[in-house]
Amino acid sequence: MDPASEEYAARLDAADPLAAYRDRFVGSETPLVYFDGNSLGRPLRAMADRLTRFVHEEWGGRLIRGWDESWMELPLALGDRLGRVGLGAAPGQVFLGDSTTVLLYKLARAAVGARPGRREVVLDRDNFPTDRFVMEGIAEECDLVLRWLEPDPDVGVTPEQVAEVAGPDTALVLLSHVDYRSARIADAASITRIAQEAGAFVLWDLCHAAGVLPVELDAWGVDLAVGCTYKYLNGGPGSPAFGYVAERHQAGLRQPVQGWMGAADVFAMAPTYEPASGPRRFLSGTPPILGMLALQDTVELLEEVGIAAVREKSVRLTEYAVSLADALLAEAGVRVATPGSAHVRGGHVTLCHPRMREVVGRLWDRDVVPDFREPDGLRIGLSPLSTSFDEVRRGLVAVRTALEE
Amino acid sequence: MDPASEEYAARLDAADPLAAYRDRFVGSETPLVYFDGNSLGRPLRAMADRLTRFVHEEWGGRLIRGWDESWMELPLALGDRLGRVGLGAAPGQVFLGDSTTVLLYKLARAAVGARPGRREVVLDRDNFPTDRFVMEGIAEECDLVLRWLEPDPDVGVTPEQVAEVAGPDTALVLLSHVDYRSARIADAASITRIAQEAGAFVLWDLCHAAGVLPVELDAWGVDLAVGCTYKYLNGGPGSPAFGYVAERHQAGLRQPVQGWMGAADVFAMAPTYEPASGPRRFLSGTPPILGMLALQDTVELLEEVGIAAVREKSVRLTEYAVSLADALLAEAGVRVATPGSAHVRGGHVTLCHPRMREVVGRLWDRDVVPDFREPDGLRIGLSPLSTSFDEVRRGLVAVRTALEE
Repeated sequence: MDPASEEYAARLDAADPLAAYRDRFVGSETPLVYFDGNSLGRPLRAMADRLTRFVHEEWGGRLIRGWDESWMELPLALGDRLGRVGLGAAPGQVFLGDSTTVLLYKLARAAVGARPGRREVVLDRDNFPTDRFVMEGIAEECDLVLRWLEPDPDVGVTPEQVAEVAGPDTALVLLSHVDYRSARIADAASITRIAQEAGAFVLWDLCHAAGVLPVELDAWGVDLAVGCTYKYLNGGPGSPAFGYVAERHQAGLRQPVQGWMGAADVFAMAPTYEPASGPRRFLSGTPPILGMLALQDTVELLEEVGIAAVREKSVRLTEYAVSLADALLAEAGVRVATPGSAHVRGGHVTLCHPRMREVVGRLWDRDVVPDFREPDGLRIGLSPLSTSFDEVRRGLVAVRTALEE
Repeated sequence: MDPASEEYAARLDAADPLAAYRDRFVGSETPLVYFDGNSLGRPLRAMADRLTRFVHEEWGGRLIRGWDESWMELPLALGDRLGRVGLGAAPGQVFLGDSTTVLLYKLARAAVGARPGRREVVLDRDNFPTDRFVMEGIAEECDLVLRWLEPDPDVGVTPEQVAEVAGPDTALVLLSHVDYRSARIADAASITRIAQEAGAFVLWDLCHAAGVLPVELDAWGVDLAVGCTYKYLNGGPGSPAFGYVAERHQAGLRQPVQGWMGAADVFAMAPTYEPASGPRRFLSGTPPILGMLALQDTVELLEEVGIAAVREKSVRLTEYAVSLADALLAEAGVRVATPGSAHVRGGHVTLCHPRMREVVGRLWDRDVVPDFREPDGLRIGLSPLSTSFDEVRRGLVAVRTALEE
């Protein structure tokens, strides 16, 4: 049977044990093809109700008492739940707050501060801009040297590359677990070990991994990690980031943005700053409670479904997208920039063609919404719980039509 | 007529031109006495609808397209509106994002970085903890000396005190416009001038001022300011902070948390960081859109009412609270820690008594909600648009009852 036929996609949807979850998302009843769940996840229908209830009952009803009753604990309590269901992290290590950029800054500064005398940070020329920008700034202020990895785009960052540059002068290795363009999964366990053997900290950016594949921070022995919650975790535009600091490091790390919410006794209004003992010391200002509300529904959903089942569907979705790209787009000169092998492929698929910028514009006009990434990539983000196989089929057919015009 | 009588308060409410606005707030129909609008403002009823519409229509309906359509501009567009209606700031200088603590860090670091060679920061021993904590951290990392003002609690920080310590080695003066405990208003115009004559930057914390009294940042010639939006601006628990950077300084300041949202071309995914030219360079990570939604309703309301009318009612409310404290509580040994003179009194009133901690606990059990501030302060925050004179009366009577027990 033709994999681009309606029947073929319908069979895949019929065989999908998670198909019914799609109805829980706003907009799933519309004909829109949404290929950007890796950039901004769809809201769950439950979220609007939660927000309304929150305004009337919690914020409006409990008012300032809400801080004592639950909000003060929310960044850590929700962090624990997210850590358990999606990050392979035991309680007491994950927290919510700030943006990914601010958390990268805080944890990278904490790491280089804990390796005085070591003057190098290893990072990857292809990493997401904010990771590179934030480290450029830190390098300038802390007088560090950036050691840039130049990965082969068809291979990504390898343990061997890291082993070559990490040494007695390396303070920190900062990399992304899933590449934001190619979707290639880095070998986090091996790279972590190599960095640590050199005496360096490792900081993983999990933005394109969290919520779509199983991350095993404790098992891999990771030191530090950050990630965002508005992609596969459906937290809403600009929802707070999460951070992970392995328990063994917490007491020894000092983050630079010292605020009242990271203090040992928040309401003591103490004369000098004394950091809290657990993960709370990595908080700074008042926790963004409104911004964390939606994430609670996603975490609940993940607790129900399990990340293993999510990953299984994710692999099938990307497999189907790659096979359709081969069948429909290869002859038009489209190159699949995403690994063919599922075990190193994350949750999105990037298709390259010199005219992709124009193609993406045309698709948006037709309610097919992928995104464009410089210089020539059309990125298809397939959020497993909100995307059907038929959506993938319709989207890839639309790419062909747009390319043919 | 007895000022503590129901009739007296009813007359004040009847004569209040803003009385009708109170109905727009969630919970105004309940008997709760809410004395904490200076800590967490009540939600407007309109906010629940806005959040629901946002989930269904904007986030759920426009999805990633929302960034192009309006969200990307929101931190600056909403900043401009807030600047105009409440801060006396011309467009292009106010932005929303991060927490107050993170913005204090970013702007204070930017200021001391722009005064190389100057090694001192002037701040106030009575300032809010996060202001002191964040500067302690910066002093350590930038090798600065903190020059602590020790204000007389009955007088507050004076221009003379600042003039005494500010000199050729001062990089920055950081103070609060309205003291979080006493509610005393500092002479921001004079202190700004004195700091600048010494060649220093001045950074005002407006947390307890914004939305309750007219702030005139441009007219006072202020360099930098930050403030929170969840107090008198009713943005919701942990809503983003605002920052102000005078236009003349923007090009010369480098903030330390370099992220993609502060870059000249956000989606260029450029190889190195080039800051944007306007206030956008003070942004770091993805703007917290969900967290800014509620604030839009407050700004609309302020545009309707005007900050001058808000201040007028605020003065009447605090005047009434002080007169009731004199009439009902003075003989029980309660001391009013807030200035009697309206022109130096902000929007809250603090009453001190050795047993206030216990009194506040008792009041909370009876749906009278002030807050407690170490060591002995009961703080009455009177948010002008959501507080009635009768609420003030009932609350002060309840304080007396609780003290008598």
